[in-house]
Amino acid sequence: MKPISRYPVPKLADLPQDIRSRIEAVQEKAGFVPNVFLALAHRPDEFRAFFAYHDALMDKQGGLTKAEREMIVVATSAANQCQYCVVAHGAILRVRAKDPHIADQVAANYRKADITPKQRAMLDFAMKVSRQAEEVGDDDFERLRKHGFGDEDIWDIAAVSAFFAMSNRLANFTTMRPNDEFYLMGRVAAPAAPAPRAEPAAR
Amino acid sequence: MKPISRYPVPKLADLPQDIRSRIEAVQEKAGFVPNVFLALAHRPDEFRAFFAYHDALMDKQGGLTKAEREMIVVATSAANQCQYCVVAHGAILRVRAKDPHIADQVAANYRKADITPKQRAMLDFAMKVSRQAEEVGDDDFERLRKHGFGDEDIWDIAAVSAFFAMSNRLANFTTMRPNDEFYLMGRVAAPAAPAPRAEPAAR
Amino acid sequence: MKPISRYPVPKLADLPQDIRSRIEAVQEKAGFVPNVFLALAHRPDEFRAFFAYHDALMDKQGGLTKAEREMIVVATSAANQCQYCVVAHGAILRVRAKDPHIADQVAANYRKADITPKQRAMLDFAMKVSRQAEEVGDDDFERLRKHGFGDEDIWDIAAVSAFFAMSNRLANFTTMRPNDEFYLMGRVAAPAAPAPRAEPAAR
Amino acid sequence: MKPISRYPVPKLADLPQDIRSRIEAVQEKAGFVPNVFLALAHRPDEFRAFFAYHDALMDKQGGLTKAEREMIVVATSAANQCQYCVVAHGAILRVRAKDPHIADQVAANYRKADITPKQRAMLDFAMKVSRQAEEVGDDDFERLRKHGFGDEDIWDIAAVSAFFAMSNRLANFTTMRPNDEFYLMGRVAAPAAPAPRAEPAAR
Amino acid sequence: MKPISRYPVPKLADLPQDIRSRIEAVQEKAGFVPNVFLALAHRPDEFRAFFAYHDALMDKQGGLTKAEREMIVVATSAANQCQYCVVAHGAILRVRAKDPHIADQVAANYRKADITPKQRAMLDFAMKVSRQAEEVGDDDFERLRKHGFGDEDIWDIAAVSAFFAMSNRLANFTTMRPNDEFYLMGRVAAPAAPAPRAEPAAR
Amino acid sequence: MKPISRYPVPKLADLPQDIRSRIEAVQEKAGFVPNVFLALAHRPDEFRAFFAYHDALMDKQGGLTKAEREMIVVATSAANQCQYCVVAHGAILRVRAKDPHIADQVAANYRKADITPKQRAMLDFAMKVSRQAEEVGDDDFERLRKHGFGDEDIWDIAAVSAFFAMSNRLANFTTMRPNDEFYLMGRVAAPAAPAPRAEPAAR
Repeated sequence: MKPISRYPVPKLADLPQDIRSRIEAVQEKAGFVPNVFLALAHRPDEFRAFFAYHDALMDKQGGLTKAEREMIVVATSAANQCQYCVVAHGAILRVRAKDPHIADQVAANYRKADITPKQRAMLDFAMKVSRQAEEVGDDDFERLRKHGFGDEDIWDIAAVSAFFAMSNRLANFTTMRPNDEFYLMGRVAAPAAPAPRAEPAAR
Repeated sequence: MKPISRYPVPKLADLPQDIRSRIEAVQEKAGFVPNVFLALAHRPDEFRAFFAYHDALMDKQGGLTKAEREMIVVATSAANQCQYCVVAHGAILRVRAKDPHIADQVAANYRKADITPKQRAMLDFAMKVSRQAEEVGDDDFERLRKHGFGDEDIWDIAAVSAFFAMSNRLANFTTMRPNDEFYLMGRVAAPAAPAPRAEPAAR
Repeated sequence: MKPISRYPVPKLADLPQDIRSRIEAVQEKAGFVPNVFLALAHRPDEFRAFFAYHDALMDKQGGLTKAEREMIVVATSAANQCQYCVVAHGAILRVRAKDPHIADQVAANYRKADITPKQRAMLDFAMKVSRQAEEVGDDDFERLRKHGFGDEDIWDIAAVSAFFAMSNRLANFTTMRPNDEFYLMGRVAAPAAPAPRAEPAAR
Repeated sequence: MKPISRYPVPKLADLPQDIRSRIEAVQEKAGFVPNVFLALAHRPDEFRAFFAYHDALMDKQGGLTKAEREMIVVATSAANQCQYCVVAHGAILRVRAKDPHIADQVAANYRKADITPKQRAMLDFAMKVSRQAEEVGDDDFERLRKHGFGDEDIWDIAAVSAFFAMSNRLANFTTMRPNDEFYLMGRVAAPAAPAPRAEPAAR
Repeated sequence: MKPISRYPVPKLADLPQDIRSRIEAVQEKAGFVPNVFLALAHRPDEFRAFFAYHDALMDKQGGLTKAEREMIVVATSAANQCQYCVVAHGAILRVRAKDPHIADQVAANYRKADITPKQRAMLDFAMKVSRQAEEVGDDDFERLRKHGFGDEDIWDIAAVSAFFAMSNRLANFTTMRPNDEFYLMGRVAAPAAPAPRAEPAAR
Repeated sequence: MKPISRYPVPKLADLPQDIRSRIEAVQEKAGFVPNVFLALAHRPDEFRAFFAYHDALMDKQGGLTKAEREMIVVATSAANQCQYCVVAHGAILRVRAKDPHIADQVAANYRKADITPKQRAMLDFAMKVSRQAEEVGDDDFERLRKHGFGDEDIWDIAAVSAFFAMSNRLANFTTMRPNDEFYLMGRVAAPAAPAPRAEPAAR
C-alpha cells in the first residue's frame, strides 16, 4: 500500500505527550487515526498550531452548522484537487448532514447539489475566497447579508475557506493519503461488511 | 426530489420502440434506468446517435480495459465539473475495476490515485485532450508510445475524452441528476443495509 | 502536401457500403469529399454515430436557422482553436448566410460581428456551454428567453456547442486537415479562377 | 453599415498635411484606405507615433521575411481576438506569402499551419511574449538560437508581438472595423468579380 | 551588478544626435538616465517612435491627471509582472501624486488602494483593456460615463493601458533593469543620507 | 484614514492577557503594532493559532535563511494580490536581507530579481505550491534536491507558501490595511527625516 505521506511518519510512542493524547482521543472517537494527524506529527509545532486553528474554526458555535462548514471544506478542496480533504471531509460532511449523497454532489459541482439558496450563496463566496480572494469586496458582503448571514458568519465562511486553502496545499505537497475508512463512512447505516476490495455486484 | 432534467422527461410508453427496448434492456441489466437515458430520450434522434457513439467507444475491444476507459471518463468529467458523469461513471469504474476507492481518488486528483505509471500517462493525455486539445502534438504521441500504447489505443483515449467533453456539457446544461443508485454501487460487498435516509441501493 | 489525418485514411473502395454511399452522396453535392468523412472513416462505427449526431443537430427543423447553427460552430471552434472546423464550417456559414464576411468576423471575435443582439445572446450562451458549462444556470435560460428563444432552441444552441466540443477535440488530436476547397467557398460569386497558389491581388 | 470606429473619424481634408499625405500614399498603393488610418487619425500625435513604430518594425530589413512578420501579427492577434488585425493582416500575410490559405491556418491554430519548424519556433516565442511575457527567459533565447535565429531576429519577433499587443487593444476598445476589401485580398488570382454579397458557390 | 538589458546598450556618444539630446534632457531633469532610454536606444527608430508615443499619451493635457495616468501604468504593469515599469513608474506615481504609499498599494492590489471610486472605475477599465480587451463593450463605456469620464478620457485610459501592454512586454523580453534611483524616489522628504544613490524628488 | 480591517478592532485593554502580552512584545520590538495583530485579535482563538503557526514556520532554525522565507512570502503574496502581506513582509524582507531593493523586485517579478539560481528554484516551487499545488510531484522534489535543498527545507518552502495562501485570503477578505510604518522600513539607512509617519526599523 502507498505510504500515508512522502515524509516520515512518526510512531505514536515517539511523539510528545500532548500530541499523543490528542491523537489517542481522536482514535477513540473515530475508531481509527485519520492520516492527517500522523502526517503532520512529523512537525510537532506545526501540528499543534494546525489543529488549534482547525478546532477554533470547525468546532466553534456560530451561525453556520457543522455540516455547512464541511460543505465549504469539500467544495473548496475539490476545486483545489485535494484528494485527502475531499475524501476525509466528504465523509465528515455525510455524517454531519446525515445525507449519504451530499458530499459527492458538492465535490463534483456544488451548483447542482441539493442545498438551499442560502447555502449556495455561502459556497459561491467560499469559492471566491478560495480562488480569487483578491476580488472580494463590499458587494460580496451585501449579497451574503441579503441571504441572512451576519458579518461573523461571513468571517467563518471566509476563514474556513482560507484555512483549507492552506490545508489543501499541505496535503498535496506531502501526497497525504486518505484512510480507507473514510470512503464508506456516512454512506451505510452500519459497519456492516464494507469490503476493502468489494466484489462488484452483478451489473 | 429534484427533477432528472430541466427538460421534460418522456414516459417509456410514449417512446419509439427502439429507444424503449434499449432502455428496458438497461433496466433489466442494472436494476434501474440511469437518468441519462430518460433525459436524452427527450430528443430521440440525438438519443440514438449518442448511445451508438457511446457503445462504439466504451464497449469495443481494444488495448484499453473497460476500467481504464471509465478512468478517463471520471478524470475528465471531474475537471469539467459534471456531477452526473462523476457519480454515474464513478460507480461503473468501481464495478469495472473491482476497487471501491478508485473513483473517488481519480475524481479528486488523478495524479494521486492508485494507478500504474502507464495509466497516469493515459490520464495526462486524456486531460490534455479535454482541456487543451489545441496543443496536442507529436510529443504527446511519442510519450504514450513509450508507455506501450499503440496508435489505436491513443485514438481510444482521445475519443473517449472527446465524447465526454460533449456528454459533460449536455449533462451540465440540462442539470441532469444522477440516480441515487449510483452513489453506493461498487462500494459494498452486498445489498446490505443502507445509510440514514439514503435512497436504498436496491440493485 | 500534408496528410489529411495523422491516422490512416481508408480508400473509398475498402469502406462498408453504407459509409461509402454516404460519402459519395456528399461528394456529388459538394463537388469534393470533405476530409472529416475520410478521417473518421478510419473508425466505421464512430463515423456512423458521428454523422447521425451531426445531422440530427445541424439538419433538423427548428427555431435556429442553419446559418445560426453554423455561427455557433464557428465561434466555439475558434475558441477551441480547431483549424478544420473553423475553415470548413466557416465556408458553410458563408454559404448559408450568403455573407462572405461573417465567418471571419465570428471566428476572430464574435462580439464584433455583424449579427443581431439575439444572435449575440445565442453566441454568448454557446460560448459558455463550450468553455464553462459547469456554470450554466437558470439565469442563462432567463436571458435567452428574454431574447425570444424557446427552451427547445436553447437545447439546440447547447447541443450544437457540445457536439463541436467533441468534434474540435477529434480534429485537433488527429491533426485533421481542411480541404483546400473550403477556403474560398462562399467568398466569390462564381467558381471563377480560384488559384490554389493565388498570385496576390494588387495592393 | 457599422461605423469604422466608435470614435469620430476625421475627414481627410481636415487632417494635418503630413497625416493626409501618408494616408493618400497608402490609398494610392492599396486602392483604398485601411480603416486603422482613419480611426487613429482621431488622435494625430498618436497616429504619427503608431505608424512610425509600425514601419520601423514591419518595413525594416532583417532576418525575418515580411511574410514571417505578418505571421506573428496574425497568430498573436487571433489569440487576442482582434478582428481588425486578423482580417487586415491576414490579407497582407496572404499577399506577402503568396499563399491563399496561410492566414486562415495561422489564425485558427498556428501549430497546425503549413509552416517550417523554424517558423513554428518563432510563433511559439511570439505567443509567449504576447500572453506570458513575464515568463520569458534565457531558455527561450537558447531554443530560438538553435533554430538559427540571431538575437536581433529575436528582438524583431518580440517587438512585433509587443507592438500588436498594443494594436490589438486599440482596435478592440475602439471597435475598429476591417475594410471589406481585406476579406478577399490574396485569395483570388485577379480582381475578378468578388461579390460584396456573394452568392454561394455551388456545393 | 546585473546589466541594464540582455541586449547591447549603446554609449551616449555613439547615438544619433536627436536621441542623445533627448537622453541628455531627461538626465538633466531627473539627475540620472532611466534605463529604458538606454535599452531602447539599441534600436534608434523604435526609440523615436516609442518616446513619441509615450509623450503623446503621458504628457498631454486632458481629463486625467498625470498621477492618474501613472496609476494606470502601475496597476497594469503589476498585472503583467513588469519589474521595470512597476519600479520606475511607481516612483513617478509617488512623485506625481505626492503620496509615498500609493504606488505600492496600486501595485499590490489596486482594489484596496486609497483612491476614489472614480479612480477605481478607471483602473477596472484599464485592467480590462490590459487583460481582456476582446470583451470591452458598450457597457464599459456606460459605466465610465456614469463616473463622469468623457469619451476622450476613456480613450486616454485605454490607450495608456494599451501602450504599456507593449512596454511591459519589451521590458520583460529584454530583462530591462530599473535604475536604483527609482526605488526610493518619492518616498522620503529630502535627499537625506539614505540608500545607495537614491535621488528623491521634491515632496 | 481608512480602517485597519472591515471588522471591529478590539482595544488592547479588552484583550485576553496572553494576546495583550504578545502584542506588547511586538510593539516594543518593532516600535509599533503591525495591523495583522489587531485585525486578527477580533478572534482570540484564531489569533493564537495563527501566530503559533506563523512562528513555527518563520522563526525556526533550518536550511532556509529568514530572508529566504520572507522572499517566499513576498513572491506568493504578490501573486495572490495581498496588499497587507506584500507591504508588511516586503519590509521585513528588506530588513532581513539588508537589501533595500529586493522586496520590490520579488513582488514585481521574482524571475528578474537579484537572487541566486538556488533561490530562483525555491521560488519557482513556492509559486507552484501557491498556485497549482495539485500538480506538485516527484519531479519538483528532484529539481530542488539538485539545487541542494533537503527534504526538510522543501517542507519549509511548501509550508510557508501554504500558510500565506491562508494569510493572503484572510487579509483580502478583511481588507486588512498595512501600517504606514512598513512602507519605508528597510529602505533608508537611518531614522532620518523621512516621509509622513514612516518608522524605519534599525538596519
